[in-house]
Amino acid sequence: MRIATLSVGDELICGQVTDTNAGTIAAALLNQGLRVQRHAVVGDNEHDIIGALLELARASDVVIVTGGLGPTADDVTARAAARATGRRLVLNEQAKAHLLEMSGHFTSLIVNPQNDKQAMIPAKTTLIPNPTGTACGFQLMHSGSYMFFLPGVPSEMTRMLHNSVLPFLAERVTGKRVIRTVQLNVFGPGEPEVDEILAGIVRPEQGLQMGICVTFPWMRITLRAEADSDDQAAALMLPAVRQVRERLNEYVFSEGETTIDETVAELFVQQGLTLALAESCTGGMIAQRVTSISGSSRYFLEGVVTYSNAAKNRRLGVDAALLAEKGAVSGEVASAMAKGVRDAAGSALGLAVTGIAGPEGGTEEKPVGTVFISLAAPDGCWTKRFQFNGSRGEIRTMTAWMAIDWLRRYLLKKSVADG
Amino acid sequence: MRIATLSVGDELICGQVTDTNAGTIAAALLNQGLRVQRHAVVGDNEHDIIGALLELARASDVVIVTGGLGPTADDVTARAAARATGRRLVLNEQAKAHLLEMSGHFTSLIVNPQNDKQAMIPAKTTLIPNPTGTACGFQLMHSGSYMFFLPGVPSEMTRMLHNSVLPFLAERVTGKRVIRTVQLNVFGPGEPEVDEILAGIVRPEQGLQMGICVTFPWMRITLRAEADSDDQAAALMLPAVRQVRERLNEYVFSEGETTIDETVAELFVQQGLTLALAESCTGGMIAQRVTSISGSSRYFLEGVVTYSNAAKNRRLGVDAALLAEKGAVSGEVASAMAKGVRDAAGSALGLAVTGIAGPEGGTEEKPVGTVFISLAAPDGCWTKRFQFNGSRGEIRTMTAWMAIDWLRRYLLKKSVADG
Repeated sequence: MRIATLSVGDELICGQVTDTNAGTIAAALLNQGLRVQRHAVVGDNEHDIIGALLELARASDVVIVTGGLGPTADDVTARAAARATGRRLVLNEQAKAHLLEMSGHFTSLIVNPQNDKQAMIPAKTTLIPNPTGTACGFQLMHSGSYMFFLPGVPSEMTRMLHNSVLPFLAERVTGKRVIRTVQLNVFGPGEPEVDEILAGIVRPEQGLQMGICVTFPWMRITLRAEADSDDQAAALMLPAVRQVRERLNEYVFSEGETTIDETVAELFVQQGLTLALAESCTGGMIAQRVTSISGSSRYFLEGVVTYSNAAKNRRLGVDAALLAEKGAVSGEVASAMAKGVRDAAGSALGLAVTGIAGPEGGTEEKPVGTVFISLAAPDGCWTKRFQFNGSRGEIRTMTAWMAIDWLRRYLLKKSVADG
Repeated sequence: MRIATLSVGDELICGQVTDTNAGTIAAALLNQGLRVQRHAVVGDNEHDIIGALLELARASDVVIVTGGLGPTADDVTARAAARATGRRLVLNEQAKAHLLEMSGHFTSLIVNPQNDKQAMIPAKTTLIPNPTGTACGFQLMHSGSYMFFLPGVPSEMTRMLHNSVLPFLAERVTGKRVIRTVQLNVFGPGEPEVDEILAGIVRPEQGLQMGICVTFPWMRITLRAEADSDDQAAALMLPAVRQVRERLNEYVFSEGETTIDETVAELFVQQGLTLALAESCTGGMIAQRVTSISGSSRYFLEGVVTYSNAAKNRRLGVDAALLAEKGAVSGEVASAMAKGVRDAAGSALGLAVTGIAGPEGGTEEKPVGTVFISLAAPDGCWTKRFQFNGSRGEIRTMTAWMAIDWLRRYLLKKSVADG
C-alpha cells in the first residue's frame, strides 16, 4: 500500500511554523505496519493544492491531507478537493448541524452560525466526525486512491486519525506486515566506524533493515524488522539486537527514548553514590543536565562554575602557584579541581572540566577545543586531555557529553580513560 | 520563479525526526523576496528520491534537495541524482581532496580515507563547498530546472545555502517584488495581551503584515512589508516598527536573531559590571546560558549550584537557622543566597533562584512551580515570589528566563519587581 501525506498551510510553506502533522501520521501508521512513502507541503493556494492532490493520488493508494479546512477565506482545501476530483462543493447538512452544535460549546470563541463555509463539503464524500472542533473532515475515492481530508489543528487531526482513518485502513489492508523497531543509542565512535563495526548484521532481503541517525554528538541506530507475524519479526530482531550490542558493547548507552542523562541518573540511584561538579568551560552545562532529572537531589550535592582563577582558588582550593605555572587549562588544574570539589562537598565522586571553548583564547600549544576532564573517586583520579572541534557551543556540548559519559563508564566499572 | 524543496531521510518520513531544513530554506528565501511553492519529503530510498526529483524538476524552476549525502550505505541521494538526470556517478577529485582535508581536522573521530563514497558526485555538476563538514554539495541543471543538493546536517546546510545557493539565485531573479521583514523579540506578556496591545498597527491591504510566533516562553513578532522597491517597503515598515516598539516598550528585548542572552551580555560589557550566580532549582541553567556567550569571562566571575542545604550554608553563608525556619524555598533564603554569592565573589551583582521544579516536592503552601528570584546590587536587593506552571523542564526554563530578564531590566535601569 503506497501512502502519501499532504500538509496545507502558508505558515508551513513559509517556514514560520514547522509541520508536525506529517510526522504524527507517519509514526501512527508505522505502528500499524503501514509505511508513508511520500510527504508534501503546499501553501493555502488552490492551484498548488489541486496540483499536489492529483499528483499524489496518481502515485499512491492512500493520501492523507491536513490543513486548510478552517473558517477563514484563506482556507481553500475543501474547494481544491472538489475541483481536483470533479465534484461540486455543496452545503452538507450533517456538517452544518455539527457546526451549530460545536458553536454552542465554544462560548469563548466568536463563531458566526451564518458562516456556513465549514459546512461546504465536496459532494459524494463521507464525513469524518471531529469531536473537538468545528471543521468536519471528509474522505473520498479518486482514481483508485483513498483520500482523507483532516483539519490542521494537531489535537483534532490526531483524534480523527485514530478514530476514523486508521480503523478504515486497517479493515482494508490485506496481508499486512508486522513492523517492529528497536533503537539503540550510541556515544563514542564516529558514523563510518559504526558502519564498519556493524557490517553484515542486517540482511535487507530477509526483512531486516538498519539505519544510523547522527544527532551531534551521539547517534541512534534503528533496527526495523518486517514480517508476517509478531513471532517472525521477533525472530529476525532479537539476534540482530544482540549482535549490535555485542559489537558496540559499552558504546551503547541506552535503548529507545532513554537519554544518557537518565541512564546516569539511574546508575547513581542504584549505587548510592554522590556527585559534586566543578565546571569551567562548560559553565554549568553539566550541572544543568544532571539536575534536569527529577530526583537528582538524592545524589547531586553541589556544583561550582569557576570561570575566574580567583574562584578556582577560593572555591576549589586550587593552588594559585599551580594556576600560574600550568595555566587554568591543564591536566594538573583539572585534577586539582576534581579533588577540590570532592573534598569540599564530601561527595563520593568529583568531576571537573576545564578547557578553551573559543572562539577566542586559543594558543599554539593549547588551541581552541583543548579540554581536560578529570574524575576524582575513592579508588583513584583519572585525567585526560581532549581536542574537540567546532563552534563554542559544539565544544561545550561535546565536553559535557564526554564528562557525563565518564560518569556512566565509572559507574559501570568500565575504563574512563578510553572514553 | 517556481521553487520546490525536497528533504531526504528515513528518520523524516517515519516521523522520528521533524524536518527543519525546509523551513530554514523557505524563511531564508522569503527574506530575498522568493517564495517556496512546494515541499516534499521522501525516505532514503533511491526509487522514491528519483521519482520526487523528476516530478519536482518538471514543475519547478529551482529544486533544493537536502539530506542523503553522508558516508554510509543508506545515503543514496547522489546516486539517485545521477540516475534521475542521466549522469554517471564519478569520483570527483576536488571533493576527494576536500574529504581528505576535513578528515585531518577531525582527529578525534575515526575517518577512513579509503572511504571515497562522499566524493562520488554526478558528472557535469558544479561542486558546492562545505566549509564545516565532509560532504560537498553539488548543483546541476535538468529539464530547465536548477537543482541544488546539500547535506542534511542543519548547520552545514544553512551555511552552504547562504554562501552558495542564495547568491546564485539572487543573480538570476528578475522583476522580483521586494519583501522586507523585521522581527521583534518579546518576553513578558502573553499572546492575547500582545495581540490586543498591537491591534490596528498593520494594514494588510497596504502590503504590511504582522505575525506572532510563540516559542515558549518568549515570542517573536514578525512584520513583513511587500512593495515594488526598497524605499516603498521601508516607508511601510518603519512607522509600524516604531509603533510596535512604543506600545510594547521594555518587553521587546531584541531585534532579529539576537537572543536575550546576547542582549544581556552586551549590557554587561557596556556597563562594566560583574556578576555571580547562586542557583538551586535551575541547577546551572542560568550559568550555562550566561557562559554560552563568548567573552562572558569579562563579567561573569562564578556560579554555584547549591542543591543541598549544606551547600547553601557552606558555599553562600546562608544561616542554618534561617534555612530551618523559613525553608530552602523562601524569599529570605533567596536574598541570603544572592547577597552571599555577591559577597563571596566580590561581584557588582549577585543573582539567586530557589524553587520547586517538581514533579515532586510541592506542598499546599508552596506548590510545584513556586520560585523565588533575588537580585543583590550596590543600590539594593529585590526579591519576588513567582508561581510558574508546567513540567519540570518548563518551570526551570521559565525561571532562568525570568532571572535573565531581571538582569536585563536592572542593567537598563527598569524596575525588576514588575518583571
